[in-house]
Amino acid sequence: MPDNNSLDSIKETTISTNRIYEGRIINVREDTVELPNGKTAKREVIEHSSAVCIVPVDENGNVLLVRQFRIPTGGPLLEVPAGGVEDGEVSEEAVLRELQEEIGYTAGKLQHLSSFWVAPGWATEFMHAYLATELTPSRLDADEDENIQVVRLPFNDVISMFKTGEIQDGKTIASMLLAQPLLP
Amino acid sequence: MPDNNSLDSIKETTISTNRIYEGRIINVREDTVELPNGKTAKREVIEHSSAVCIVPVDENGNVLLVRQFRIPTGGPLLEVPAGGVEDGEVSEEAVLRELQEEIGYTAGKLQHLSSFWVAPGWATEFMHAYLATELTPSRLDADEDENIQVVRLPFNDVISMFKTGEIQDGKTIASMLLAQPLLP
Repeated sequence: MPDNNSLDSIKETTISTNRIYEGRIINVREDTVELPNGKTAKREVIEHSSAVCIVPVDENGNVLLVRQFRIPTGGPLLEVPAGGVEDGEVSEEAVLRELQEEIGYTAGKLQHLSSFWVAPGWATEFMHAYLATELTPSRLDADEDENIQVVRLPFNDVISMFKTGEIQDGKTIASMLLAQPLLP
Repeated sequence: MPDNNSLDSIKETTISTNRIYEGRIINVREDTVELPNGKTAKREVIEHSSAVCIVPVDENGNVLLVRQFRIPTGGPLLEVPAGGVEDGEVSEEAVLRELQEEIGYTAGKLQHLSSFWVAPGWATEFMHAYLATELTPSRLDADEDENIQVVRLPFNDVISMFKTGEIQDGKTIASMLLAQPLLP
């Protein structure tokens, strides 16, 4: 890297942790850290499992999205299928499970696109993004309290919706733009 | 949209809210919601301010990134400049303030790329992404407890780092891929 600074000039060391809340999908903790200048600071951290998101593309060049009501956003949102990696799963298993639960398909081919933190300043969720093709119908029961609509749209129509506000989901934007050069 | 379902089949209605934690940058609440089938479910919600992220590109086609130690990730991370929108600011003001605080530049031209939720299943953070060009030096003091290294790299070199794992930040991937077609 073309900079002159070492890790020492930015490193933070955790001195103590105060556990605040243990929830169903998130935990909250407050870390006290020592800064490079010797002072201390507080860091609020949301603990969340690893996750996967999937760009499922059919043989006609359509992407299969899901529409869900999202309480934090106050309304319905159109997104690529996604979900947490469960204990004992590797990310590809989570991908195939979520595809079957959320859109009723499995995939003959998975291509890893990238892996990224969704909110690295304050959350531990690390997301693995995949392109899924060679789709065939296969249904697993979804979570009882998840209500999902499946929406099939031409891939490039959805890309144009990132600018208009019809798509407002970060993982959908990142994963579809990563997948775009891999499509025929 | 080419689906036959209405909002009624997915809508969730908040019945009650239990406030769990009020922090410095996040709050935590637990909502009880009524599902379309009349049953109830719990939704854990992290409240976070709106935010901006910025792709600053210089006249030589380099992007200016920041490297920070991120406690939730356990190490340093290379990201586009970003930060919360403060009370009374519009997003363009937050963009110009963050550029001056984090990289020591201001921008003659801002182009809105997209706005998106970073973790819509469980967090209220809504992020506005901008391309910033016509950069000129201008410095504002950064937050006292933020230690930042500025890293200047050719734009297309950074794009290739999304796949190798050298860049692992969702907003950086989304915003740079949105900016790419707008660059000369």
